[in-house]
Amino acid sequence: MNSLHIMLGSPDSRQHTMPPLKEQDYYIGVDKGALLLAENGYYIDLSLGDFDSITDAEKLIIEKNSKKVISFEPEKDDTDAELSLVYAMQFFDTEQIILYGWSGGRLDHLMSILMIVMQPRFKSIVTRLIFINQTNTLKFYLPGSYLLFKEPDKKYCSFIGMTPLSNLTLDKGFKYTLNNNNFDYPIALISNEFVMENGRFSFDDGLVAFIQSKD
Amino acid sequence: MNSLHIMLGSPDSRQHTMPPLKEQDYYIGVDKGALLLAENGYYIDLSLGDFDSITDAEKLIIEKNSKKVISFEPEKDDTDAELSLVYAMQFFDTEQIILYGWSGGRLDHLMSILMIVMQPRFKSIVTRLIFINQTNTLKFYLPGSYLLFKEPDKKYCSFIGMTPLSNLTLDKGFKYTLNNNNFDYPIALISNEFVMENGRFSFDDGLVAFIQSKD
Repeated sequence: MNSLHIMLGSPDSRQHTMPPLKEQDYYIGVDKGALLLAENGYYIDLSLGDFDSITDAEKLIIEKNSKKVISFEPEKDDTDAELSLVYAMQFFDTEQIILYGWSGGRLDHLMSILMIVMQPRFKSIVTRLIFINQTNTLKFYLPGSYLLFKEPDKKYCSFIGMTPLSNLTLDKGFKYTLNNNNFDYPIALISNEFVMENGRFSFDDGLVAFIQSKD
Repeated sequence: MNSLHIMLGSPDSRQHTMPPLKEQDYYIGVDKGALLLAENGYYIDLSLGDFDSITDAEKLIIEKNSKKVISFEPEKDDTDAELSLVYAMQFFDTEQIILYGWSGGRLDHLMSILMIVMQPRFKSIVTRLIFINQTNTLKFYLPGSYLLFKEPDKKYCSFIGMTPLSNLTLDKGFKYTLNNNNFDYPIALISNEFVMENGRFSFDDGLVAFIQSKD
């Protein structure tokens, strides 16, 4: 399975997870995220952003370590994160799109990034997105039936209805089970746990964010 | 104006803002948030939580500095944050309910706390809630017309549609204006700025989170 790794520019480097280095994978650096990748020895397929909080010397480091650099005006309709996904859709046909550097700092940025999945233009890539930081892994699911696997280092798992949900079922692989439950409004069902190595979940309508997390 | 201050138990003490100490105000401490208040000299009106990650000595500190302590079983349907708001609605009739200690750490916790406003049982207090940390202030608005004031230390302001929105208007107090725009799905309109000391915004349907933030 090949992946596109996108390092966003969150200021909270304490929560950053660095992507794995794999020959078949691709790397996008967004604004300060491009600098973080470049300084850590990654060769970046595409660096983009307005780079307005970066020095000229730092910009040079990014350019030297990037196949391509695209600079935007600071004032534009899309956020840098949205633009990175527009390019991801256009130029990188990977099975997974993994996002790093999205946590900490500005809450409006975080909410905007998570709410990207509500935008119709990104619907085709929603289920390929994975958000990773030190204590959380988030994936999105469209209606269907799925076998989920426990991450060894994570204690909790949570099912977040980004929309109303119908017939949500969690089988005995989970501590708290559900049997065809309906939820009329977006609801966060958090702090569930795997009691086995895996568990099956299914639902008929809506969009679910599944998060594995630890304290 | 009197306020109820609720300190939640987020592990990220770097982002914590401590509430002001005012004689007419009330204080709720939730789990480790109760310890943080007690250790910082606050006399707490109500401490609650499962306290399962706190030592006996720490529990004593909380008890000594609290008017009332309610301990829950760790396994319950509501989160500690939800329970604190249930008690807030029942016992504290303040004009504002200000939440602290909600950021950092587990993303499922954060999403759950922000999504509390989607739950019908909390509808009556949605517009009294304020979320504060070091870099963000968040308030919720129901349909209407409002004059918003710039916080001197915050550069950005963002309008987040928690639902579809109709006839969203932002007047010339803001850098990016809108005139009766409709949004068919939840959308984050972020990184706007005040260009004057205040600005008027209005909308006819939906729920808006207004965030002032800084890097």
